[in-house]
Parts: sequence; structure tokens; C-alpha cells
Amino acid sequence: MKLKYRRIPEETIRRLPIYLRGLLFSSQMKYKRVSSHELSEFVGISPCQIRKDLSYFGEFGKRGIGYDIEKLSSEIRKILKLDVVRKAVLVGAGNLGSAVLTYPGFKMYNFDITAAFDADPRKIGKKIKNITIEDIGTIASVKKRKIDLGIIAVPHEAAQKTADALVKAGVKAILNFSPCYITVPKRIKVITIDIAMDLARLPYYMPAG
Amino acid sequence: MKLKYRRIPEETIRRLPIYLRGLLFSSQMKYKRVSSHELSEFVGISPCQIRKDLSYFGEFGKRGIGYDIEKLSSEIRKILKLDVVRKAVLVGAGNLGSAVLTYPGFKMYNFDITAAFDADPRKIGKKIKNITIEDIGTIASVKKRKIDLGIIAVPHEAAQKTADALVKAGVKAILNFSPCYITVPKRIKVITIDIAMDLARLPYYMPAG
Repeated sequence: MKLKYRRIPEETIRRLPIYLRGLLFSSQMKYKRVSSHELSEFVGISPCQIRKDLSYFGEFGKRGIGYDIEKLSSEIRKILKLDVVRKAVLVGAGNLGSAVLTYPGFKMYNFDITAAFDADPRKIGKKIKNITIEDIGTIASVKKRKIDLGIIAVPHEAAQKTADALVKAGVKAILNFSPCYITVPKRIKVITIDIAMDLARLPYYMPAG
Repeated sequence: MKLKYRRIPEETIRRLPIYLRGLLFSSQMKYKRVSSHELSEFVGISPCQIRKDLSYFGEFGKRGIGYDIEKLSSEIRKILKLDVVRKAVLVGAGNLGSAVLTYPGFKMYNFDITAAFDADPRKIGKKIKNITIEDIGTIASVKKRKIDLGIIAVPHEAAQKTADALVKAGVKAILNFSPCYITVPKRIKVITIDIAMDLARLPYYMPAG
């Protein structure tokens, strides 16, 4: 089973969370099954690509009947290792960091943001959604708290320093919201998100004039 | 020229902004040229995929010399129609909306957020980075201001209503930060961003235990 999963292309892995969210939308609309064409409408990926991606995991869909939403969702969660709760720590409690803390979407993927740090004395001690902002100087305490994931939402000039501190504090992966490249040891996976980047795809689809 | 661009697969278009940002990182590091292997390091996409994607636009790279960063960036901007400034309007000036307004990354893609609206009387009239928050009740005024893009950063229960108002106000494309599916006329392109979704790819790459 493990070996089979290993051979899934990176690009397919990149699309799995998109499918997972499309399946959630479908189930919110009270569907029990969804065809690749219907799912395509929700996620903006071609039915053909969807079928190809999902074929890596065996036979979920039946021609003319579609995919069983609950079964497929649970399988994708398993593949993405989202079937256990993962603790995350946020660094940077500015606008974006506060948005991350209050964002309802993380729960869906079994992420639990259990700690938040900032360097600004005016923010330290403040509470955002039950999380008390801690002093960045004490970030080493993360190590004892079994936190696997780090989220960086600091100004870009502080991003590398923050990444170094998170690595030292034992996180295994980092989600970076700062629009800059950060360097970490090979064993740490970093995903950098640029909230403007998705907007960059829009003009291509806009009619001229 | 137009026809040639039309045949570019959606997935390639999706990756072009990622390459554009990788090229920006490279130029920030004072590179003039970058190989597909170097670019791969910045963007987390395989060199082979990069070469395949860029081959749609003719010959940019030379074996052993790499891509001319400035030339390739400018070509990608042209393909994505990012070579002209586009005005955008934001609806929802909460944490995420405020983060969008103050985010430095939009300029890089030639986006100019020129207006922002909210329904909350406590927010209306406030200034965030030179933008005065306007009353959502007056959003029809967008039509006269030649704004092409709408950005939705409202709670998900208000997302569809906001999308309807934006379409009525004449936007041609929508970037939706609300974690829900919205319906719009076929001519309007919608991209929904889930800031948690990228985090969903991380556990897959994490070592067990």
C-alpha cells in the first residue's frame, strides 16, 4: 500500500486537497455521489484530469454512477495523512496571522492551531479565538508541546529568522505566507503561499476590452 | 499568436504565476539567468515539468545556459495579461480583507486595489493604506470606476450575495477567499482560495512518528 502511494506525482498530490474541498461542497449540497463532471464544476479541473488523478488510488468511481463522496473523501484524507489531528503554531499575529487564527477552514483538514507568537509587546498576551499570543522569545517551548507544523505570517524581512526558530523548535513542515523564499534543512517541507498569486491567473480568462 | 496561446493547458496556466514568482526570487538573488533545475528549487515543481510548460511559448532556454530571467518574466506577464495595470475592488475589510489591502504582493502582478467595501458601520469611513472603506450599499458605484476584478473576503454566509453584487457592478473576474462555492454567470471567472488548503498538502511530506 505504502509503495503504491509513493509513486503518486507531486502535481496529483497538489490537486487532492482541491478535490477534497470540492467533495465537501458537494456533500454540503446534500449529494451522496458525484460524477467527475460535477466535481469538475466545483474545482475548475477537467473531468479527464480528475479521473486520471483518482485512478492512482484504485477504483472509486463507477461509470454512470459517480464517486461515493464519503468514501472518496476519507480515502483522500488517508492518503494526505489528514486522518489524525495535527497541531500547528502560528508566528506573526498581524492582520494575516489573525485571519489565519480565526479562519474556519483549518478544522476541515484536521489542523489545530494551538499556539501563536509575536514580537510586538502590544500583541503579546492578547487573546485571539482562545489562543493567547506568546512572546516570540519563548518559542523554544514549542518543542515540548508536540507541534508538527509551523505557519509563518511575519513581514518578509523576518521570515528567514522565523523559519530558523521554527526548525529549531522542532516543527516538521512550514506553511509560509511571507512573499519570499526561505531556506530550511532538506527534511523540512516548506509550502509558500502568495495570496496575490491566484489573482494573477484571472486576467488570462477575462474578455478583452 | 493568440491562437497559439489558446492551446495552453489550464494546469500550465495555473503554474505560470508560480514560475513568475520563482523568477522574481531569482532576480532578487542577483541572478541574470536561471536553469530549470535552479528554478525548480524555488518553486517546488520538477525541472522536467518546468521545461515542458515553458516549451508552449517557444524557445526561452538554452541548454547549459538557462533561461533569461527578464525576458521570460516579461513573456509570462504578457501571456497572463499582467502587462497592464488592473483595478480591483475588495469586499470585506475584516482581518483577511485588511491583510489583502496591506499585502505587498499584489503590485508585483500589476493589481491595484482601488476600492474597499464593508457592511459594518464601525468599519465604513476608516482608512487602510490610503483606501477608505465604503458602505457596501453603494457598491454600484464600482461600475463607473472601471474596476475589473472583485475580491471577496466576507464571512461565507455573505459570499454569494457579495458575488451577485460584484457581478451587477460589472467586474469580470472574482477572487473568492470565502471557503464556499459561489455561482456566477458563465462569462465571469471565479478563483476560490482556501488559505488552509495548501496546509493540507504538508502532512503527506512529513516523516512518520
